[in-house]
Amino acid sequence: MERCRIIFSGSGGQGIITAAIILAEAAVLCEGLNAAQSQSYGPEARGGTSRSDVIIADTEIRFPKVTQPNVLVCLTQDAYNKYFGLIRPGGLLLTDSHYVKQEKNVDARQVELGMYRKVMDEIGRPVVFNICMLGALTGLTQLIKPQSIMKVLERRIPAGILEVNKQALKIGLEMAEHLDRL
Amino acid sequence: MERCRIIFSGSGGQGIITAAIILAEAAVLCEGLNAAQSQSYGPEARGGTSRSDVIIADTEIRFPKVTQPNVLVCLTQDAYNKYFGLIRPGGLLLTDSHYVKQEKNVDARQVELGMYRKVMDEIGRPVVFNICMLGALTGLTQLIKPQSIMKVLERRIPAGILEVNKQALKIGLEMAEHLDRL
Repeated sequence: MERCRIIFSGSGGQGIITAAIILAEAAVLCEGLNAAQSQSYGPEARGGTSRSDVIIADTEIRFPKVTQPNVLVCLTQDAYNKYFGLIRPGGLLLTDSHYVKQEKNVDARQVELGMYRKVMDEIGRPVVFNICMLGALTGLTQLIKPQSIMKVLERRIPAGILEVNKQALKIGLEMAEHLDRL
Repeated sequence: MERCRIIFSGSGGQGIITAAIILAEAAVLCEGLNAAQSQSYGPEARGGTSRSDVIIADTEIRFPKVTQPNVLVCLTQDAYNKYFGLIRPGGLLLTDSHYVKQEKNVDARQVELGMYRKVMDEIGRPVVFNICMLGALTGLTQLIKPQSIMKVLERRIPAGILEVNKQALKIGLEMAEHLDRL
C-alpha cells in the first residue's frame, strides 16, 4: 500500500483527536498495519484551531507528524484557510459545508459534504459529528474497512452512546457512497 | 522552564493515551505552554504494549516524539522491561507496584507507588487508574498545577463519572505528597 498521511483540522470540541485515534487504532488492531498519531498544541490551540495527524503504512513510521497530507479534513473555515495549501497534489480535501466554504483552487479532489447538518437532522447529537466524518472519509478513501472502525467503536465507546456512534458512521459511509455514484 | 519529555507506557486499556492528552491540554489551555503528544502503533501494539509521548515546553516543539524522557511511567512489567533504559540521567521513573517490580539499576529517581491497589480499595473502578497516576505524576514533578488537570477533567469527562475521576486525581496527589514527606 501507499503510505497515507492525514491531517484532521477544526476547532477544539469537534472530536478531531478522538477521530484520529480511532482511525489509527482501526488500522493497527484490525488490519495489521502500522500507524502514528500526533497533535501539537501551541498558541493556535488557545485561539481555537486544533489539528491532529495520522500516518498509516505497512512499513515502519519514524516521524509521526504530517507535512504534506494525501488527505486533508477541515471542519472550520479558519482551519481550511490555514491548511488548504498543504494538500499533496492529487490528494483529497474534505470539508463540511455547514462550517466551510471551499474558495481556493487546489490540485486535489475537493469534496464538500453536509455532514454536520445530516447528523443534526437524523440523530440530533452534535457529539457524533466526528464519527460521521470518519465514515465519509472511510468511504471516500477505501483506506481501511468500515468494519474495522466499527470494531474500535465497540471497544472504545461507552455502551450508552455506542448506537448513535454506529448510526453516525453509517450516515457518513452512505454520504460517500452517494457521492461516488454521481 | 526546562523542556519536559514524558513517556507513558503500559498496556492498551490502561488509559495511557487519555492521560497523555489530558496532561498536554492542561499545559496548553490552562498554563499557556506549548505541548505535543503522539503515539506510534506497530507490531508491539498488537502484542499489547502501548506507549504515548508528551513534550511540554515554553518554546516551539518541532518533533513530537520522545527519545530520552525526563519522566518515564511504566504501568506493566513488559513496558518497564522495554523502556527503562531510555530514562534520562537524573529523571523520574514512576511505576505501579501492583503491575511492576523495578529490578534494574537506573540513574534516575525510582518511585514505585501502589496506585492501582489504592484506586481499587477506595473507588473500586479500575477505569480511573490513569487519572490517579496523573495525580501522582503532577505531585511528584510539580510540572503543572493540579487545578489545571482538574479543569481539563471538567471539560472532557462526562458528568456521570466526573466525580470519581476527581477523587482518583486527589488520591494520586496525596500519594505523591506523602512520599515527599518521607
